[in-house]
Amino acid sequence: MSKQNIPIIVNIMSANDQIAQINRTQLDQAGVLAVNIMASPGAGKTSVIEAIIKALRNELRITVIEGDIAGSIDAERVQELGIEAIQINTGGGCHLEAGMLQRAINQLDLEAIDLLLVENVGNLICPSAWKLGTHKNVLIASVPEGDDKPYKYPTMYRGVDALILNKIDLLPYIDFDMEYFKLGVTLLNQRLTTLSIFDISCRTGEGISDWIEWIQEQKRIQQDFIVETCT
Amino acid sequence: MSKQNIPIIVNIMSANDQIAQINRTQLDQAGVLAVNIMASPGAGKTSVIEAIIKALRNELRITVIEGDIAGSIDAERVQELGIEAIQINTGGGCHLEAGMLQRAINQLDLEAIDLLLVENVGNLICPSAWKLGTHKNVLIASVPEGDDKPYKYPTMYRGVDALILNKIDLLPYIDFDMEYFKLGVTLLNQRLTTLSIFDISCRTGEGISDWIEWIQEQKRIQQDFIVETCT
Repeated sequence: MSKQNIPIIVNIMSANDQIAQINRTQLDQAGVLAVNIMASPGAGKTSVIEAIIKALRNELRITVIEGDIAGSIDAERVQELGIEAIQINTGGGCHLEAGMLQRAINQLDLEAIDLLLVENVGNLICPSAWKLGTHKNVLIASVPEGDDKPYKYPTMYRGVDALILNKIDLLPYIDFDMEYFKLGVTLLNQRLTTLSIFDISCRTGEGISDWIEWIQEQKRIQQDFIVETCT
Repeated sequence: MSKQNIPIIVNIMSANDQIAQINRTQLDQAGVLAVNIMASPGAGKTSVIEAIIKALRNELRITVIEGDIAGSIDAERVQELGIEAIQINTGGGCHLEAGMLQRAINQLDLEAIDLLLVENVGNLICPSAWKLGTHKNVLIASVPEGDDKPYKYPTMYRGVDALILNKIDLLPYIDFDMEYFKLGVTLLNQRLTTLSIFDISCRTGEGISDWIEWIQEQKRIQQDFIVETCT
């Protein structure tokens, strides 16, 4: 019997990943830092974006891409702050994909952007499986969602670059075991030495400055890298 | 040119819907009332189920099917109340499907069950697209998620049989425009005269009794129907 070729099943995500790679290259060439912000519905993605805009608008040129299954409520909130916002409506789709981001990117003058904030669809499951080509993945948890979420949604809590715990102003009114929550986060990210965690309240402003410093630091690292590779 | 057959694209959901129909028939034959409970992560699905168990355990034989992408935290909470619970792990899947429910149902003695509570995966998008064969669809919203959710997740808010707004004890600490929220719900369900809305707090017990009466009423309607069709 002649030797047969063994068929290789290609990764189902490869088409998406290829486009993500193209996105990344475009962003890198223009020196844009792109951050993918993921969370449950109502955890505070847009509020965190508003906080970044208010803190950094005088130092960085910021643009926002809003992903929603319908409507443009969040894009309007961003535009009210005088910041450029592009709305992606997924038409029922439960996550952003690299191709959607590519179409949005192609509408932008990337050379005029320092920081691109991408608000993913509100969903604690599917977005984690789809690379976009952004540089950093940020997950926003919130106190009212409960302390057991890392254990119940491990794919989302695993491998993000930063974790924000929002709505800490509600801690006095909710049974939330902080130690149990953070143990879950730690267990899922044991191999990761770089996970940054920020306890914040967009409502009171508590903890926001540390989170803003993290964004500034990521931008500095990117700029240093660009300078190094150019000299 | 001879007349050609026009190919008909079969509804992608039809395989699921067929199994859902089988599930419904099995449930009906055994006189089980099955309720599909959907919500965002952390809106309070398990807490609402616990409230139903505590209120009705002496009058109805209750079983719970728990859907999660990983773990069995919620099934354990239910079992701690001495109630039978079956865990469905979707292995990363973002919603329950009729086939998953069928496999769970086949493990149960349906004749020994009056009320079957099905906790769907925590997700405000995908579960709405998958029929399970249950009799009633219930959506749990929660105050901390924000008042704009009906507008942003219309597929989920449209066409449910009951809507619970949980965590109303947090209203004093959160900017939540109740009128705006309920306008959204109403706009999405204009053709529906039967949508019941319950403002509750699982934490304080406020509003729970009205919600429990709704469950009792659905059970009475089912029993009356069975008596009518048998005589």
